[in-house]
Amino acid sequence: MKDIAVWGFAWVPPFAQGLVRDLRVRWALEEAGLPYESRWIGIDQRTSEGYRRKHPFGVVPVLDSDGETMIESGAIIYAIAEQCDVLMPRNLRIETLAWMFAALNTVEPSLWNLFVIDQLKNDEAWTTLRRPGAVDEVRDRLAALSAWLEGREYLLGRFTAADILMATVLRFVRHTNLVAEFSPLDSYLKRCEARPAFQAALRNQAAGYVQNAPVAA
Amino acid sequence: MKDIAVWGFAWVPPFAQGLVRDLRVRWALEEAGLPYESRWIGIDQRTSEGYRRKHPFGVVPVLDSDGETMIESGAIIYAIAEQCDVLMPRNLRIETLAWMFAALNTVEPSLWNLFVIDQLKNDEAWTTLRRPGAVDEVRDRLAALSAWLEGREYLLGRFTAADILMATVLRFVRHTNLVAEFSPLDSYLKRCEARPAFQAALRNQAAGYVQNAPVAA
Repeated sequence: MKDIAVWGFAWVPPFAQGLVRDLRVRWALEEAGLPYESRWIGIDQRTSEGYRRKHPFGVVPVLDSDGETMIESGAIIYAIAEQCDVLMPRNLRIETLAWMFAALNTVEPSLWNLFVIDQLKNDEAWTTLRRPGAVDEVRDRLAALSAWLEGREYLLGRFTAADILMATVLRFVRHTNLVAEFSPLDSYLKRCEARPAFQAALRNQAAGYVQNAPVAA
Repeated sequence: MKDIAVWGFAWVPPFAQGLVRDLRVRWALEEAGLPYESRWIGIDQRTSEGYRRKHPFGVVPVLDSDGETMIESGAIIYAIAEQCDVLMPRNLRIETLAWMFAALNTVEPSLWNLFVIDQLKNDEAWTTLRRPGAVDEVRDRLAALSAWLEGREYLLGRFTAADILMATVLRFVRHTNLVAEFSPLDSYLKRCEARPAFQAALRNQAAGYVQNAPVAA
């Protein structure tokens, strides 16, 4: 890959900063040592016809590289990982992909659901009634994941691309103490977030938000 | 792959029959012309210690092949597709994977949410309040997908593994008329479901439910 540009939202409110999914791609690129530029799309422009030509669902991230456009954080990260032993050693390809899908399709749904309840729709009456059951569903997944992580530094022992997806998924409930309830999981997330590549990705994403912040009235 | 066995739930109620995710793997194997056996796990045994050793989250599908265990429908299907041009031609690898992730991480969440509301939790009071917004979210994704499918027989023009995931995701709202509201989408789903491999997969899954049905009191 060369001439890489990553698309993210120009600005999001503080509760969402550090959670938007372009962070995953930035992190993977930092781990792989691949330089990239940032491109910003206004969150209100995401359904414009121009941007829909880039991404059919009007979401982020999109990665442009050498005239090609790629969508979906999972697929983009897999493509980067195929070229980078730090992210996916040859002998762990299928296991890495399995845990990438586990992060996005088995763990993310219940955690994202709680994020919606607490952060996106918290002014709607149904959320109060729904929340206790939604928290139970999160605990169920976190307990299973924590049991898996006992005695493992990362999902597959050593760090892989799957940890990028799992750690960023776990961050969707950073507004709660749910991860901290599970000691192996809590250590795991801290270990992931302490990686210099994660810190660099977070800084680059945040720099865009500072630069593009709406002017106070 | 050889000596393939696919794990699914032994029996589920009629509203869930034809929706459990082992169907995806059966469909992919049928498209690839790979023979397989069925293994059944009681839905109440899925959190047992024995089954957790097979699948950390206690869900299905699991694929056993030649002594190896694989989890996550997305990853299993990608592994099958790598060996089968019908499911993933070499020149469409990244695009196929992108649309596989789009099905599971961009489209499935809102459709699964409506399935939960209408089919799994419909005796809970919050669902009445939540439903209108949830339907809007489904329509938003379906409209974008339908626009993409205009003039395309399948997601990438020709059939790929991504269509297996997308079609099975669309089936989560089969209890509504939402897919039928979008003509290109409606034709697409019917086209996918008419494939002989889909029909064979559905028959094999249903045969297990007949064989394992609970005895009426």
